[in-house]
Amino acid sequence: MKTAIYPGSFDPVTLGHLDIIKRSAAIFDKLIIAVLANPRKKTMFTAEERVELIKLAAEGIPNIEVARSDRLLVDFAAERGSFIIVKGLRAVSDFEHEFQMALTNHKMDNRLDTLFLTTNYEYLYLSSSVVKEIGILGGDVSAFLPQSVIEKVAQRFKEWGAHDGGRD
Amino acid sequence: MKTAIYPGSFDPVTLGHLDIIKRSAAIFDKLIIAVLANPRKKTMFTAEERVELIKLAAEGIPNIEVARSDRLLVDFAAERGSFIIVKGLRAVSDFEHEFQMALTNHKMDNRLDTLFLTTNYEYLYLSSSVVKEIGILGGDVSAFLPQSVIEKVAQRFKEWGAHDGGRD
Amino acid sequence: MKTAIYPGSFDPVTLGHLDIIKRSAAIFDKLIIAVLANPRKKTMFTAEERVELIKLAAEGIPNIEVARSDRLLVDFAAERGSFIIVKGLRAVSDFEHEFQMALTNHKMDNRLDTLFLTTNYEYLYLSSSVVKEIGILGGDVSAFLPQSVIEKVAQRFKEWGAHDGGRD
Amino acid sequence: MKTAIYPGSFDPVTLGHLDIIKRSAAIFDKLIIAVLANPRKKTMFTAEERVELIKLAAEGIPNIEVARSDRLLVDFAAERGSFIIVKGLRAVSDFEHEFQMALTNHKMDNRLDTLFLTTNYEYLYLSSSVVKEIGILGGDVSAFLPQSVIEKVAQRFKEWGAHDGGRD
Amino acid sequence: MKTAIYPGSFDPVTLGHLDIIKRSAAIFDKLIIAVLANPRKKTMFTAEERVELIKLAAEGIPNIEVARSDRLLVDFAAERGSFIIVKGLRAVSDFEHEFQMALTNHKMDNRLDTLFLTTNYEYLYLSSSVVKEIGILGGDVSAFLPQSVIEKVAQRFKEWGAHDGGRD
Amino acid sequence: MKTAIYPGSFDPVTLGHLDIIKRSAAIFDKLIIAVLANPRKKTMFTAEERVELIKLAAEGIPNIEVARSDRLLVDFAAERGSFIIVKGLRAVSDFEHEFQMALTNHKMDNRLDTLFLTTNYEYLYLSSSVVKEIGILGGDVSAFLPQSVIEKVAQRFKEWGAHDGGRD
Repeated sequence: MKTAIYPGSFDPVTLGHLDIIKRSAAIFDKLIIAVLANPRKKTMFTAEERVELIKLAAEGIPNIEVARSDRLLVDFAAERGSFIIVKGLRAVSDFEHEFQMALTNHKMDNRLDTLFLTTNYEYLYLSSSVVKEIGILGGDVSAFLPQSVIEKVAQRFKEWGAHDGGRD
Repeated sequence: MKTAIYPGSFDPVTLGHLDIIKRSAAIFDKLIIAVLANPRKKTMFTAEERVELIKLAAEGIPNIEVARSDRLLVDFAAERGSFIIVKGLRAVSDFEHEFQMALTNHKMDNRLDTLFLTTNYEYLYLSSSVVKEIGILGGDVSAFLPQSVIEKVAQRFKEWGAHDGGRD
Repeated sequence: MKTAIYPGSFDPVTLGHLDIIKRSAAIFDKLIIAVLANPRKKTMFTAEERVELIKLAAEGIPNIEVARSDRLLVDFAAERGSFIIVKGLRAVSDFEHEFQMALTNHKMDNRLDTLFLTTNYEYLYLSSSVVKEIGILGGDVSAFLPQSVIEKVAQRFKEWGAHDGGRD
Repeated sequence: MKTAIYPGSFDPVTLGHLDIIKRSAAIFDKLIIAVLANPRKKTMFTAEERVELIKLAAEGIPNIEVARSDRLLVDFAAERGSFIIVKGLRAVSDFEHEFQMALTNHKMDNRLDTLFLTTNYEYLYLSSSVVKEIGILGGDVSAFLPQSVIEKVAQRFKEWGAHDGGRD
Repeated sequence: MKTAIYPGSFDPVTLGHLDIIKRSAAIFDKLIIAVLANPRKKTMFTAEERVELIKLAAEGIPNIEVARSDRLLVDFAAERGSFIIVKGLRAVSDFEHEFQMALTNHKMDNRLDTLFLTTNYEYLYLSSSVVKEIGILGGDVSAFLPQSVIEKVAQRFKEWGAHDGGRD
Repeated sequence: MKTAIYPGSFDPVTLGHLDIIKRSAAIFDKLIIAVLANPRKKTMFTAEERVELIKLAAEGIPNIEVARSDRLLVDFAAERGSFIIVKGLRAVSDFEHEFQMALTNHKMDNRLDTLFLTTNYEYLYLSSSVVKEIGILGGDVSAFLPQSVIEKVAQRFKEWGAHDGGRD
């Protein structure tokens, strides 16, 4: 049985992520979505919230598991005994960073191998950062997010936008 | 009548920006320079100051307007009824980010179209960030800025540099 | 009145080209599509055929003209008295080459200015070369070409494919 | 059972290709290496020779098959009933071209999905073209090729080099 | 006598930096390693500590000097009377930024010339930021650092990691 | 004494090449310009002509030598006992190819080290291919070439242009 790991921040999960999840779940016997809880990175949603949003978005896909990881990807992979990493690529800048991470992870544990899927062209423009930037300024983000998470995410954008307005 | 919008932070306006302003004003009937006032981005000059510096720099160009925008570009464009966006490109990294923004804006309002001008090769090395980095460390930035804004900008660099020196 | 020139090989015209033609024709008062007839480049269609295919594809767009050019772009532009060049950008590699050409053309005649439009994401994967490669090997190219030129182009692919088959 | 296809020219197979073959064979239940016999591309080795060289190089890997393909990848994949394509990535320029091909193939048959593996850093500098360029000029290419094919490939380089020398 | 300057943050020095130091010291008569002490950039090690780590790492290379610089590179170079700058390149993103800096420095003082060395492929994946990211999360970084600095750097990672843990 | 080698096709030498020659000659004690005579590449000027054009263009620079090389760069370097290679970089696409060549050469002879100079921004748009393309179509190339070679090069363009015209 081949199990792959799809690591990321997912802050929040977008239609682009969901596309990678669906396609990876079709290729591998099992897919573990690893939500990275790096204490040094500020996120809009807590690790628990991000796990919940992915569960909502990916409901109905049978062979996936959504897990929080507080550790290095190499340690998470070793613990799970799964050494196939899946990442989505949109652009050259993605490629360079992910390439460096793939080589570094392979250097730390040579059992680790990273596979890249190119984002479907409908989602090429999509990134969590751009969605957040638009959402906080009051833009409509429903075209960018899985149907089942729109309401929760929009609510958070509203709170952050209001907070900013007050602070400015 | 064709009106185009040239959005940016302009923190502060450089000779590279001025080059794009002049050339765009020659191509379109009217050019609106939109100074983005994103409350989440720290700037060296306030939105009002940035508007003033551009007005000083671009004095004498008849068919331009300099405006502050606190909203999403798609909303600003809709309000003004102008759907042609102009951006300058210097390098591959510019291209990738601007490309993503152009696709996102088009997704949000399909009337919006983004045109790119390549920066004249004399200004290829120029960015507001590099100018600020040099200015704060006491370097001479007069070769990078429009003549009419040098004094005001240099004064701010001096204040920020002194502040840093004291803080270190 | 603002006239722009959209130069290219168009061997053959694709849906990606047609997208740039439509959008440019909406931005400028007039658009001249210049089919470059470089004697040193082998093409599948003659310059005359390429002009005809574009006319078929762009039928109904009122403010365009399709012209063959046997000369340098700078000379063609000077003769027509139009100094705005329009080009489509799909990817980083496009960008680098087009950037170099834009700077070179500006060096040769400083009235010339090049504007870039990013290809709509539906057509990002499209290039005349890829279409030819697929067509000659017998693949279905109807999803890549304007409706009105499919038959003529498919016929040529068939001839070339047969020729190859016989030669191999 | 998951079967993947690794398509390419393999003219000739290098240590970089062998690395991708080994790693893909470890990830999937079966790997079909598809040697593309495009009649329009001149190769140093015939399709049959290229198949033989890969068989020699990959001897001992149980779950692979080496096959010649005279058709489009989408047709080959459909015939075999395998829709997972594997490709190696070395550099940004690889990425752009492969990305375009992946999107095009997906457009032609939406069951097709392309996975990318990053070349191990030891083989980053390696390409069949560079190996050929060095070999024909009489350089030692044994560090770039699988042990079992060195002799055959070196012999061909010698013949081509001699041929060139006589022609010059 | 030709003296070159190798400027950087070196926070901390890695095996990649040491590779560039050794090769530059072999090319030039003297190499000055300039540790940039920019008060606006937060570093893990103070400028003094970074100087000490490089001295430890590069012990035994006779023709080098390690110096702290609080000023612009152009001013440091002018004071030392050395106008050859050496930088290491790993990837396209490095290239773009360094290219811009090289053009800017040349604009500020046209005696300044920047030479780039490509990082040896063994160190392509290496950056101080990635090493820090791994180290703080408790990963083993000994494969990335010069032998003589491992202990000191690992100690700092431990302190920062603990601090983070407490803060989270 | 430090000797560097600047290899290339130089078909023909441009102002961009001359800029790299001047700057390299200022950095190293001696500079050997190696004109590569690859029998598989079609050139507009013979190797002998290319050597002569460089000698004309670089007249007056005392510490240079212009040499023809029919062999691999690694062999030429070994024969001369000089292992420092100098190359000019204009753009990302240059970088990728040169990077691969630098790693390959280092793999073949680990004494070889490649240094890159960024082309001065005035010459960023310049390449021999673009100059040839313009020249053959009858364009004025005097702004791109060293004064002393303009006449000879223009004469060749005229011949090739006429030849093409007749052939078309």
